[in-house]
Amino acid sequence: MSIGILTSGGDCPGLNAVIRGAVMKGDKIYEQEFAGIRDGWRGLIVDDVFSLPRRRVRGLSKEGGTILGTSRTHPYNGIDGVGGPDAIRAVMERHGMEGIIAIGGEGTLSGAARLAADGLPIVGVPKTIDNDLSGTDYTFGFDTAVSIATESIDRLRTTTEAHHRCMVVEVMGRHVGWIALHAGLASGAHAILIPEVSVTLEQITEWVLLTQARGRAPVVVVSEGFQLKNDKGELEDIAAERGLDAAGRPRLGGIGEALAPLIERSTGIETRAATLGHLQRGGVPTAYDRVLATRFGHAAIDAVMQRKWGQMVALSGIDIVTVPMAEATKELKTVPRKQWDEAAVLFG
Amino acid sequence: MSIGILTSGGDCPGLNAVIRGAVMKGDKIYEQEFAGIRDGWRGLIVDDVFSLPRRRVRGLSKEGGTILGTSRTHPYNGIDGVGGPDAIRAVMERHGMEGIIAIGGEGTLSGAARLAADGLPIVGVPKTIDNDLSGTDYTFGFDTAVSIATESIDRLRTTTEAHHRCMVVEVMGRHVGWIALHAGLASGAHAILIPEVSVTLEQITEWVLLTQARGRAPVVVVSEGFQLKNDKGELEDIAAERGLDAAGRPRLGGIGEALAPLIERSTGIETRAATLGHLQRGGVPTAYDRVLATRFGHAAIDAVMQRKWGQMVALSGIDIVTVPMAEATKELKTVPRKQWDEAAVLFG
Amino acid sequence: MSIGILTSGGDCPGLNAVIRGAVMKGDKIYEQEFAGIRDGWRGLIVDDVFSLPRRRVRGLSKEGGTILGTSRTHPYNGIDGVGGPDAIRAVMERHGMEGIIAIGGEGTLSGAARLAADGLPIVGVPKTIDNDLSGTDYTFGFDTAVSIATESIDRLRTTTEAHHRCMVVEVMGRHVGWIALHAGLASGAHAILIPEVSVTLEQITEWVLLTQARGRAPVVVVSEGFQLKNDKGELEDIAAERGLDAAGRPRLGGIGEALAPLIERSTGIETRAATLGHLQRGGVPTAYDRVLATRFGHAAIDAVMQRKWGQMVALSGIDIVTVPMAEATKELKTVPRKQWDEAAVLFG
Amino acid sequence: MSIGILTSGGDCPGLNAVIRGAVMKGDKIYEQEFAGIRDGWRGLIVDDVFSLPRRRVRGLSKEGGTILGTSRTHPYNGIDGVGGPDAIRAVMERHGMEGIIAIGGEGTLSGAARLAADGLPIVGVPKTIDNDLSGTDYTFGFDTAVSIATESIDRLRTTTEAHHRCMVVEVMGRHVGWIALHAGLASGAHAILIPEVSVTLEQITEWVLLTQARGRAPVVVVSEGFQLKNDKGELEDIAAERGLDAAGRPRLGGIGEALAPLIERSTGIETRAATLGHLQRGGVPTAYDRVLATRFGHAAIDAVMQRKWGQMVALSGIDIVTVPMAEATKELKTVPRKQWDEAAVLFG
Repeated sequence: MSIGILTSGGDCPGLNAVIRGAVMKGDKIYEQEFAGIRDGWRGLIVDDVFSLPRRRVRGLSKEGGTILGTSRTHPYNGIDGVGGPDAIRAVMERHGMEGIIAIGGEGTLSGAARLAADGLPIVGVPKTIDNDLSGTDYTFGFDTAVSIATESIDRLRTTTEAHHRCMVVEVMGRHVGWIALHAGLASGAHAILIPEVSVTLEQITEWVLLTQARGRAPVVVVSEGFQLKNDKGELEDIAAERGLDAAGRPRLGGIGEALAPLIERSTGIETRAATLGHLQRGGVPTAYDRVLATRFGHAAIDAVMQRKWGQMVALSGIDIVTVPMAEATKELKTVPRKQWDEAAVLFG
Repeated sequence: MSIGILTSGGDCPGLNAVIRGAVMKGDKIYEQEFAGIRDGWRGLIVDDVFSLPRRRVRGLSKEGGTILGTSRTHPYNGIDGVGGPDAIRAVMERHGMEGIIAIGGEGTLSGAARLAADGLPIVGVPKTIDNDLSGTDYTFGFDTAVSIATESIDRLRTTTEAHHRCMVVEVMGRHVGWIALHAGLASGAHAILIPEVSVTLEQITEWVLLTQARGRAPVVVVSEGFQLKNDKGELEDIAAERGLDAAGRPRLGGIGEALAPLIERSTGIETRAATLGHLQRGGVPTAYDRVLATRFGHAAIDAVMQRKWGQMVALSGIDIVTVPMAEATKELKTVPRKQWDEAAVLFG
Repeated sequence: MSIGILTSGGDCPGLNAVIRGAVMKGDKIYEQEFAGIRDGWRGLIVDDVFSLPRRRVRGLSKEGGTILGTSRTHPYNGIDGVGGPDAIRAVMERHGMEGIIAIGGEGTLSGAARLAADGLPIVGVPKTIDNDLSGTDYTFGFDTAVSIATESIDRLRTTTEAHHRCMVVEVMGRHVGWIALHAGLASGAHAILIPEVSVTLEQITEWVLLTQARGRAPVVVVSEGFQLKNDKGELEDIAAERGLDAAGRPRLGGIGEALAPLIERSTGIETRAATLGHLQRGGVPTAYDRVLATRFGHAAIDAVMQRKWGQMVALSGIDIVTVPMAEATKELKTVPRKQWDEAAVLFG
Repeated sequence: MSIGILTSGGDCPGLNAVIRGAVMKGDKIYEQEFAGIRDGWRGLIVDDVFSLPRRRVRGLSKEGGTILGTSRTHPYNGIDGVGGPDAIRAVMERHGMEGIIAIGGEGTLSGAARLAADGLPIVGVPKTIDNDLSGTDYTFGFDTAVSIATESIDRLRTTTEAHHRCMVVEVMGRHVGWIALHAGLASGAHAILIPEVSVTLEQITEWVLLTQARGRAPVVVVSEGFQLKNDKGELEDIAAERGLDAAGRPRLGGIGEALAPLIERSTGIETRAATLGHLQRGGVPTAYDRVLATRFGHAAIDAVMQRKWGQMVALSGIDIVTVPMAEATKELKTVPRKQWDEAAVLFG
């Protein structure tokens, strides 16, 4: 009998540290064997599974990416008509798996919760660079993303000052603004634009001009999911700023590249855009993320041994706890308005 | 009228971000003026105070050290017979200070609590690289220290492997083992030795040999405050390993340098020691510490405006709260045995 | 009498270290005073000049950007009809400047050479992130850019592997491929595309598929100035890949974003693009660049004191020498075909 | 038939990149096979050799340490009476090795030169963190060591300033001062002490006091091989500062720890010491070192194919060349007095 482990969805620094933590504790304390499942749910559907002994996870705590590979395959939609709890159960039985540790974000954990409700022995480990999961104070990956974004903004600032420009830096965050908020606070940004809060171009312009008036080069940090609205809360039409693809749809370039020319026009300050993109999810995890991920790995194998199916591990204060996956994925954890207001004290 | 700010005790990455956060919010929201107090309580005793307008704190969130300077002067012991609440009150009145923000560790905050009990208008901001303060989940500085220690151990590992050696890395932590615990977990150490837990040389030897038997080069992380004891819990006499000074006292070199030859002798593996020392408290704070320190700065000026004398700001989960300084400094926050046991799963 | 210093053109890590080196040696050895000229030739034309005593340059060796500011103003074209040697001479005389240290790239040094030929007392310091200047083995800025690009590619690789994708990374280099060549070699890229060498889409496709066949995720590094050509050496029409602006011109996104969908189509491998852009010229210079820039600063003030007008400082092997600016700027230093062939050994 | 590769002496960032470069070019261009020799000359004497196919070297360019392991075994002294050219030739014949690439420092290359003179088919690759090898402008490892030392001094400076202390930083360099010179220049040290130049305590005291007088916290960088002498050039007796071991010999702590109390006494400024030690040879190589090491690897296999026995690869300006090992190891490359004088312009 063995425990299967899979990683699913976008990759995230710390995945390997979770895998290592679970396997090492499982091997040493529970004398448990492990099976690596390739590319998330795909491996459980098409039966792509391999043995995962302790020596395969050595040295992994500092490695980015995931040795298991990942994909966006959905456990119910499956592949070519194959999928769902029965198909997965069949593969599990073939390999003698008595439990699954599923490491993933909101989508993965929703799927896992549903599979658990359908009777499959699954525990979850939350993973989200965006920090958008309720039910846990933080997850691994977020600290690394914020660190890389902060370091990048520190770098961009020197060139921005030298040329007396304004710089718009687009960071990750399709639905929530946590990375922008933290990286913006850490780097001393002069404006932070997030999906949760409506800000008009007039307001941005005011902050940028105020910054310039104090003799500094303005830095605007924007989440990829921010939408520019007018003072009635209506979406501004900025498609033209982004170019059109063959089919006439706005394409290439995100909100950062769209905002830069608008700010340049409204302020008269030469404005450049930088999009950090995939850089934020790559590379060596921070010490914070390695510790959290290792503790999650330990807690996940404990949860398996205690048959806590349908639960996921979570951080609460300085403790690791377990919470029901179904609840933890019910709603996105957005930035509270109060916290953005607090940050806005530093704008301009 | 103005608010005085001081930093006291050992310096710590994030001090400048606290100062900046307090001054910027105070200036913008409360239209408050600030006075910088030089070198901790010393400046309040000998009247070494200067104006701290907003432009003096610009760009500070990423600067290590403290623009105010620091010292270990005690507010009651004072300097040359001058000190205590009356002397401090006199200086405060001379400069029209209506409140003090004291940023410091256990010693500083104990002094501040006593001064507040004696009627002085003081709020505290906790600062400790060692993470040894009760009353707050974490403080700034700790994450930076752990990051630097982790990065250093990552580096030492490659040379250790190349030479098939054992490496003993001494990190900070005179009374508590938090830095060793986190840096050891993050870097995959094969043993973590902390002041809170007795470990014999026999046990260390076993872990080191076990690691070597698996084909790896053992890395032992040790807090500077760890003491080697025998299996009866008696202190081992390792003074001879450290050399003697002119007066015959053990000197130079910490526990790491003392342990290395003991391990070499008991295992037969060539063993080197590295002491990270001041490196751990220097340089650019991590993004995590910058955010926490900025939030602490905001909360500190809020606490001043609300006349919360005798309170200090603190992190609870993801929220910033205030707690009584007297309580927060009553006992050291040590590593719980359970948490070390959890880490010990990975040893050997 | 004083020496004027200016920085002109795109900024570059190390500019401040040159300024500091020149001012500190000038102050200490030659008891010389200095004037800072704001924003390159602009400051010499509109008379924007300030005193630059030693204490203004302290701590600058590790600061990115330039405390003098920079612009792309041309000394002969000038501003609003004002410019050229006479206008500049007038400003110099007004401030008692007996010499100018001009720090800049090919354009700046060409202008400086012409001004020197017209009788102005100017020495040059070569600055180019792209490493495209003949007459010097290397200049400062290049090593920092290569380091940042390499670190970024290291990071991108982990996410690329996790998703079994192909990644196209666009680095700086409008006319020459040095950054791509060095960062590609350092990071183990599977293809390096530079302006100097024609490579067809067929060839790129072959390398990418070969890499995938060996079980790895392909990483393609491309200079921003690379142009895709067919096997007859004719430019491929890839405008459509880049989207069109309001006026129907290809816009937004560089060669990296244009290549990614072409590679995806020809290989069937999901392909993403990352553009490093301004990140490469920002932040703290590497130790290598700080040392070289400091030595250039020393050599520049020596050259001024020796009245070597029209000369620029340069690196030759491990020595700092001076060479005529007019010659050094005659032709771009491109990547020799032999050196690219050598790197190509590692492709695929 | 195959080519053997070994790494010998202290490890050095970039060793793995050389191995990878040689194996990849050898495999692809020359269809050559490779044998890895374990732990330097030891592996050639006790026959510890393994096959080294291309896939074993993948991803190695950024890995510190050496996958071959290293030791200080001397090829002629050997192990337990076994060694010398005949023993080595026997092992080579047993494995069908037609050539050896020996990567090492002065000692290794001297041995290799002697073996080559005795008729063995060996080419060398120079490796020295200290940059003390004649016959090559630079070697890999040095840039990484200087980078780590510079970053460390940057960090130490902030804590030094906060406490108004003096800091003595000991860096590597037993016989030559290159690391101290470059790291000191890069980090703006106030004094640089190297083995090649006599400096008295009086002179150091003057620099330290001068720095303090300008309101700064003095940073003194010292090579481990620096010796304090009086103004007659006689060695100062500072043994007492270092403590004595059981046998009464000075022990523990290097020149940095010995200097700190002397400076504290002579200047009255609280002075701390930091010893960087093994940190400097660990971890991920810089991009500069990866590129140089890769090019050396390519050139080494070329040299083997051209039967250039007794030669080593070297950097000359921006070109890779070959030079006779016997000549390259004849004398240490020390820091020229002129270059130290140039740096001393910035002291105090």
